[in-house]
Amino acid sequence: MGAMEPHINVVTLAVEDLERALAFYRDGLGLRSDGIIGTEFKGDDEHPAGDAVMFPLDSGLVLALYPRTELAKDGGVAAQPASTGGFSIGHFVATRDEVDAVLKAASAAGGRVTDPGHDRPWGIYSGYFQDPDGHLWEIIYSPGTEA
Amino acid sequence: MGAMEPHINVVTLAVEDLERALAFYRDGLGLRSDGIIGTEFKGDDEHPAGDAVMFPLDSGLVLALYPRTELAKDGGVAAQPASTGGFSIGHFVATRDEVDAVLKAASAAGGRVTDPGHDRPWGIYSGYFQDPDGHLWEIIYSPGTEA
Repeated sequence: MGAMEPHINVVTLAVEDLERALAFYRDGLGLRSDGIIGTEFKGDDEHPAGDAVMFPLDSGLVLALYPRTELAKDGGVAAQPASTGGFSIGHFVATRDEVDAVLKAASAAGGRVTDPGHDRPWGIYSGYFQDPDGHLWEIIYSPGTEA
Repeated sequence: MGAMEPHINVVTLAVEDLERALAFYRDGLGLRSDGIIGTEFKGDDEHPAGDAVMFPLDSGLVLALYPRTELAKDGGVAAQPASTGGFSIGHFVATRDEVDAVLKAASAAGGRVTDPGHDRPWGIYSGYFQDPDGHLWEIIYSPGTEA
């Protein structure tokens, strides 16, 4: 008991504005979602509200969006200003062109390409974008790796 | 083209000290890793070094550790101080007791329990810990959900 099983089930991104983040990922990047759920759970100054967005991904993983203020309350930590570079999400695609296409789509949807696609010394072609909240995604073509 | 396929392949945590973070996740929480890899890729002020740690998880997902300074260079963003609450990782377990056990193990390994296990309005029992870099994990027992 105590050791952690090797799985992650949910990646929750703290966001300033649920509607804006939902629009970016659903309308801009094409991820499917039922929209904002959990609105029946009203929070207060101490207790987090339930409003959240879930994107079911492959393999049972869920990408969730949750207001920054509420995540701080739920997690028992002090609310802090948004910051970039604390983590990144890696997303594999099947070709170099797809790396560029996803970066372009992210940019068109209101994200910002911080590092355009290029070859990296460790044998991948990748580029980074930030979502509207500054969260970093690396879009990766890794020859020999199934997307 | 351009829409994002619904998958995440890598979750990379920016860390101050690779050895410390490796010890927390491998020795403290029992995740398997080959240790620090990529040391053959030497960086400089502009180019990131390759030193990183990979934990292969179920379903092909990889949890990676990468120095904060290098992630900023790799992603083309300004290096920022560590911050907590920008995201969280959700980890399902099979019982309430396991929630408490993982939190206890995380604490013993050098993490900090920020919110002990308790029932939440949306029908889960969960608690949060921070890893040594402040990254938030929520350990979740969700009745009816397979861990």
